[in-house]
Amino acid sequence: MRERLRVAMVGNGFMGAAHSQGWRVAPRFFDLPLLPSMDVLVGRNPAGVAASAEKWGWRESSVDWREVVERDDIDVVDIVTPGDTHAEIAIAALEAGKHVLCEKPLANSSAEAETMTRVAEAAAARGIRSMLGFTYRRVPATAFARQLIAEGRIGDVRQVRASYLQDWLVDPASPMTWRLQKDRAGSGALGDIGAHAVDLAEYMTGLRLGRVSGVLATFVRQRPIAGSSSGGIAAAASDAPPAEYGEVTVDDVALFRGRFESGALGTFEASRMATGRKNALRVEVSGSLGAIAFDLEDLNSLELYDATEPAGEQGFKKIIVTEPEHPWVSAWWPAGHMLGYEHGFAHQARDFVEAIATGEAPRPSFADGLHVQRVLDAVEHSSEGDGAWVEVAGGAD
Amino acid sequence: MRERLRVAMVGNGFMGAAHSQGWRVAPRFFDLPLLPSMDVLVGRNPAGVAASAEKWGWRESSVDWREVVERDDIDVVDIVTPGDTHAEIAIAALEAGKHVLCEKPLANSSAEAETMTRVAEAAAARGIRSMLGFTYRRVPATAFARQLIAEGRIGDVRQVRASYLQDWLVDPASPMTWRLQKDRAGSGALGDIGAHAVDLAEYMTGLRLGRVSGVLATFVRQRPIAGSSSGGIAAAASDAPPAEYGEVTVDDVALFRGRFESGALGTFEASRMATGRKNALRVEVSGSLGAIAFDLEDLNSLELYDATEPAGEQGFKKIIVTEPEHPWVSAWWPAGHMLGYEHGFAHQARDFVEAIATGEAPRPSFADGLHVQRVLDAVEHSSEGDGAWVEVAGGAD
Amino acid sequence: MRERLRVAMVGNGFMGAAHSQGWRVAPRFFDLPLLPSMDVLVGRNPAGVAASAEKWGWRESSVDWREVVERDDIDVVDIVTPGDTHAEIAIAALEAGKHVLCEKPLANSSAEAETMTRVAEAAAARGIRSMLGFTYRRVPATAFARQLIAEGRIGDVRQVRASYLQDWLVDPASPMTWRLQKDRAGSGALGDIGAHAVDLAEYMTGLRLGRVSGVLATFVRQRPIAGSSSGGIAAAASDAPPAEYGEVTVDDVALFRGRFESGALGTFEASRMATGRKNALRVEVSGSLGAIAFDLEDLNSLELYDATEPAGEQGFKKIIVTEPEHPWVSAWWPAGHMLGYEHGFAHQARDFVEAIATGEAPRPSFADGLHVQRVLDAVEHSSEGDGAWVEVAGGAD
Amino acid sequence: MRERLRVAMVGNGFMGAAHSQGWRVAPRFFDLPLLPSMDVLVGRNPAGVAASAEKWGWRESSVDWREVVERDDIDVVDIVTPGDTHAEIAIAALEAGKHVLCEKPLANSSAEAETMTRVAEAAAARGIRSMLGFTYRRVPATAFARQLIAEGRIGDVRQVRASYLQDWLVDPASPMTWRLQKDRAGSGALGDIGAHAVDLAEYMTGLRLGRVSGVLATFVRQRPIAGSSSGGIAAAASDAPPAEYGEVTVDDVALFRGRFESGALGTFEASRMATGRKNALRVEVSGSLGAIAFDLEDLNSLELYDATEPAGEQGFKKIIVTEPEHPWVSAWWPAGHMLGYEHGFAHQARDFVEAIATGEAPRPSFADGLHVQRVLDAVEHSSEGDGAWVEVAGGAD
Repeated sequence: MRERLRVAMVGNGFMGAAHSQGWRVAPRFFDLPLLPSMDVLVGRNPAGVAASAEKWGWRESSVDWREVVERDDIDVVDIVTPGDTHAEIAIAALEAGKHVLCEKPLANSSAEAETMTRVAEAAAARGIRSMLGFTYRRVPATAFARQLIAEGRIGDVRQVRASYLQDWLVDPASPMTWRLQKDRAGSGALGDIGAHAVDLAEYMTGLRLGRVSGVLATFVRQRPIAGSSSGGIAAAASDAPPAEYGEVTVDDVALFRGRFESGALGTFEASRMATGRKNALRVEVSGSLGAIAFDLEDLNSLELYDATEPAGEQGFKKIIVTEPEHPWVSAWWPAGHMLGYEHGFAHQARDFVEAIATGEAPRPSFADGLHVQRVLDAVEHSSEGDGAWVEVAGGAD
Repeated sequence: MRERLRVAMVGNGFMGAAHSQGWRVAPRFFDLPLLPSMDVLVGRNPAGVAASAEKWGWRESSVDWREVVERDDIDVVDIVTPGDTHAEIAIAALEAGKHVLCEKPLANSSAEAETMTRVAEAAAARGIRSMLGFTYRRVPATAFARQLIAEGRIGDVRQVRASYLQDWLVDPASPMTWRLQKDRAGSGALGDIGAHAVDLAEYMTGLRLGRVSGVLATFVRQRPIAGSSSGGIAAAASDAPPAEYGEVTVDDVALFRGRFESGALGTFEASRMATGRKNALRVEVSGSLGAIAFDLEDLNSLELYDATEPAGEQGFKKIIVTEPEHPWVSAWWPAGHMLGYEHGFAHQARDFVEAIATGEAPRPSFADGLHVQRVLDAVEHSSEGDGAWVEVAGGAD
Repeated sequence: MRERLRVAMVGNGFMGAAHSQGWRVAPRFFDLPLLPSMDVLVGRNPAGVAASAEKWGWRESSVDWREVVERDDIDVVDIVTPGDTHAEIAIAALEAGKHVLCEKPLANSSAEAETMTRVAEAAAARGIRSMLGFTYRRVPATAFARQLIAEGRIGDVRQVRASYLQDWLVDPASPMTWRLQKDRAGSGALGDIGAHAVDLAEYMTGLRLGRVSGVLATFVRQRPIAGSSSGGIAAAASDAPPAEYGEVTVDDVALFRGRFESGALGTFEASRMATGRKNALRVEVSGSLGAIAFDLEDLNSLELYDATEPAGEQGFKKIIVTEPEHPWVSAWWPAGHMLGYEHGFAHQARDFVEAIATGEAPRPSFADGLHVQRVLDAVEHSSEGDGAWVEVAGGAD
Repeated sequence: MRERLRVAMVGNGFMGAAHSQGWRVAPRFFDLPLLPSMDVLVGRNPAGVAASAEKWGWRESSVDWREVVERDDIDVVDIVTPGDTHAEIAIAALEAGKHVLCEKPLANSSAEAETMTRVAEAAAARGIRSMLGFTYRRVPATAFARQLIAEGRIGDVRQVRASYLQDWLVDPASPMTWRLQKDRAGSGALGDIGAHAVDLAEYMTGLRLGRVSGVLATFVRQRPIAGSSSGGIAAAASDAPPAEYGEVTVDDVALFRGRFESGALGTFEASRMATGRKNALRVEVSGSLGAIAFDLEDLNSLELYDATEPAGEQGFKKIIVTEPEHPWVSAWWPAGHMLGYEHGFAHQARDFVEAIATGEAPRPSFADGLHVQRVLDAVEHSSEGDGAWVEVAGGAD
């Protein structure tokens, strides 16, 4: 009989549903050394969190995260709250001896992220594991891409093109939310989705950004407050009364380029204004012997170009990454049966459980998250200045 | 507190994993009127079924399906065994007053399918629901396609191109299995995947095939018996001893064309020899005002062509079918977050529970399955003869 | 100084423009052993043919093809008239000792095609060359596909999927033309575009169809006579007076399957009702070791699947067929600079000139055209009967 | 009888073949008000230029451009020499009263480009026309895109993504050429292909870049001198003697971002190191009501996204830009018959002849070329400095 791994999750928004699915599904497909049990869900509103707990299948609910992270009968704390609360919860949990899985971003500032990283490293010395939730590392195609690049299949990496394009802010009538307020969200497209582009580019290539130059921009500076009236693209001629507006204080778009420590160059874009692109996280890597391209809107595929083939036979090859040979895939369905967005969360749960059982340091680590945070900070500093190159802090470590 | 809907599932192969995932996940994302509970898993081998029950999360296991379908504390019997056992189990369950979800094919012969349909219709009069598992009807893109066609968006349907292409038999060294034996499997590509192509084409268009003309073919007539040695494409020069071979008695490939009762024409292909195509169920429908194309290898998309637009602006539009407006999607993730193969099973569980609660007859019905079986029979008859047109039985009903 | 090759072309419709472009352009890019000169254009209407001659760059025009094909100062007769006139012109020209390039179809009946083939073979013995205009053999990607298949790169061919989809008859208001009259055009989609699908499938694979089973269908049986009023899809509510209608006596759609002499299977479709498909000639070949796919709507590309690669690295590779290694390409532009529809006509002119200079028998031959005609005849016979298999005549040759 | 327009072309490299094809073909498909005649080809080497003249169909050849541009029997001078000679030839021709078509780049420096622009504007006052050869403006899809954007179909432009990716320098063994020497070529990827990306982005959107920030990089700094030995990717283990190397003094890659005068943002990349990308000039424009995407590797298509459609029906629509409604297309083939790279040169010849006949100022003008040159200069200045924003000169005009 396997030992149970008792999980408490803090936070019950959209990411809570995804993490719940991960914990629920992972043990049904993977042979885990420990059996995770979904014990406590923590939220702010008693009725809301109780309803979520019932819906998602958590045994208990609570509104007191401090109490929960101290409980003896909890082994893992999974944090899916907004970024400004991560530091306090994670640090408390780590200090209480709990393994911590923390949703990205690690924190809203590098200062907080540094503290968290120090605490996590100290906890690691005591056998406590911590991991950050950049789940796009756990799409089979991106992990397979990393493997191919690490094997030298595309030679030396020279260029990376990474972009994360969404379009949910295209319509000026899309309402104001906390995600558009700097004091709550830290940043806009940059931190929300640009962070994924940076992490995935570095993960796939094994490279680290050394300096960046960028610009942030906000195209729609005022948005209607939800509940007040608004028209939308399709309802221009409405008779509705005028809406009240709030100030957007974060970026809609972040454009930056980066120089990796290896000398390779990267271009990065994070946009919530890329009309028609819903969730297009794309990374193309050009190397001296080949190239690799990934697109999250076609997440079961990977394109591979091998420049060592005869000249007349080269081409981008679309590999459907659903073969048993591919990372995590053998646990699922036969070849050609597609995986979706949420499978990354099952893979994350599996890998974190494995790391806890084996004692190996899981990745992405808090240090990885701190590095990404520093990259984003450098982009902001560049944008606030004249757009010139800015060094990424911690580069000499 | 919602009433529980107590489910027993018979069968614990690959489809059992998929159905289990459907039952497990559906209540976590949809607000169901009844709460399904995964109560009993039935298999043949006591140790095997107990292990599956633990892995997949069924409370009990059993090796006696007859006893289970009679139990008072079971409401639903879900049948995922091979096709030759469906009739006996389904009929017993229906007669015991259980709602029955039966994986496709309904049966291995039209005669059995007819009996099952009669029993199901009699049971329906007593409030007992039965449904067949053509889950590709429950991919949001195919349901959305049906909706658009029903609304007249592509006008009168004139042509359908439907194919289901796989390649797992390309290599002559792929071993013999029961799926390649006519007495066990009924037919080969025709019944296994051709059935999906027929059902999906009819579902999307709302049309029924009236007659067909076709050919079945087997390219590799002998295959090594697993455990005996075999080389594989990649190991031609092996020193391994010669393998023992078994006879393949079903089709590798089925090609047929059909005339729908409306006069529209269809082309159909089912192949396990379509090198490079892993799970490519494609349906393209050409109408008098537009066209629609679906490909299961890109299952979150639907292509729509509107021939009523200005001539210079027409084109196939790739709709990412992940908007809240699309069938089932609002329960899941934000737009652009992709669903996978198994989501159809959650949708199936949801819809069956809804039908049981509301008393509406769920589709696909056993009668739908019988019709598909008759189409396949007609194809076989055409192939056994000189390839001429053969009427689909039951057409005048 | 190269010798001139004096060309007369009979016919000045759309294909005349394409052939003229071929003759004009070929010597500017290829080093030809003989220099073609565009000497005489023959048409029916004196003013019309004179205008075409000036526009397209022919030195003289004529309305008397019989006189022209007898002229001593003509070496080549290029025939681009409708199919019902090919036999008479081609035979006269061959008997007058002229090399003949004849646009497809070779003839409107197999009987005529047989005579032409006999005459061409007799002429060949006297050093007179004849060639048929299936120009899609001269798209670099299709020629490269043939080369790869001939080299065994996809192993034994098992299945071919060939379709030629257009949509110019979708709108019932599209007017009547001679192409829709059986006495003029011979057949509809079958002979016009189905012929290309058959020839290209056989060319790429090197196989020959031995028997076929098919159906022809006409969805719109009456069409407005041009000049009389008609509405079109976009003008349903028009006040225009009712149009006069003519009978459509050819097929809109031809569906057939074929058994190649090798045992391989093919599916074929020719449609002018495939809404949204403009000029989609597609051939996919599935072999025991790989697959190849071509689409004329993406004519500079070829997709290649190699099933001998490691399982996790297989995929369809999109080769851009614009490298100097590819057939004909080195004469044109640098890699990645795309060729268009008309380049096939330049390649055809080049190859015919080469054949005349070297004395090698050019392909496609009249015999190739006769064979395609016989395939189409067999499809028609199958369709007129009960859809059963019909042997292709001449198969035993 | 139409008047002749007597053309002399200076330069007989690869672009000479393309321009020759444009002059040769344009009058065969378009009804031109004046009939261009290919009168004199000018080169440096008497034998070489005579051979080119014969191959391409120019009546005479010459090695003295100064004499030719003064001839009374020449109306148009077409300049296809390397960029460092454009100014001298164009100015002489304009001052001699010849209409001038000048291949891009206008010049290798802004100073020269300014002088040329002044001379061209003075000549325009005397009825002399001048035009610059950014032929990608004359792909039907890009011109159609401009038209749609000008009509407001995608609303206000917010973002542009433009890149021109090639890979011919990926292999370090690719030999040294004059294109890699700054004194000859002016710049590398930036001026050669980045210029196209800038011009096309501005043309499609109707916007002008106001400032830029960028970086240039050279990954392979030494390349073998042709004729000396070198291995190539595929011949690493060669026994060949070591090659002699030359210094690469231009950029392999240029990355920059731009702020348009309207406030819109652009990202730009020009690379000769983008492994697997042969000639991928791509522009995607995101607007407040829709988006447009073009890719030169699929040049007959345009993707259009309309954000004013119902939410569930939005998608990128792939328009095949071969309808008679599309720019220039009606002169060519039926719908779905693809055009290639060289058709832009025929369109250019046609438009220049029209402009000469009508007296309307043709575009792109020399002033357009000067502006692009200034953008590139600003990118270089940014790259030479710390990567900060640099104003594009002439912005206030």
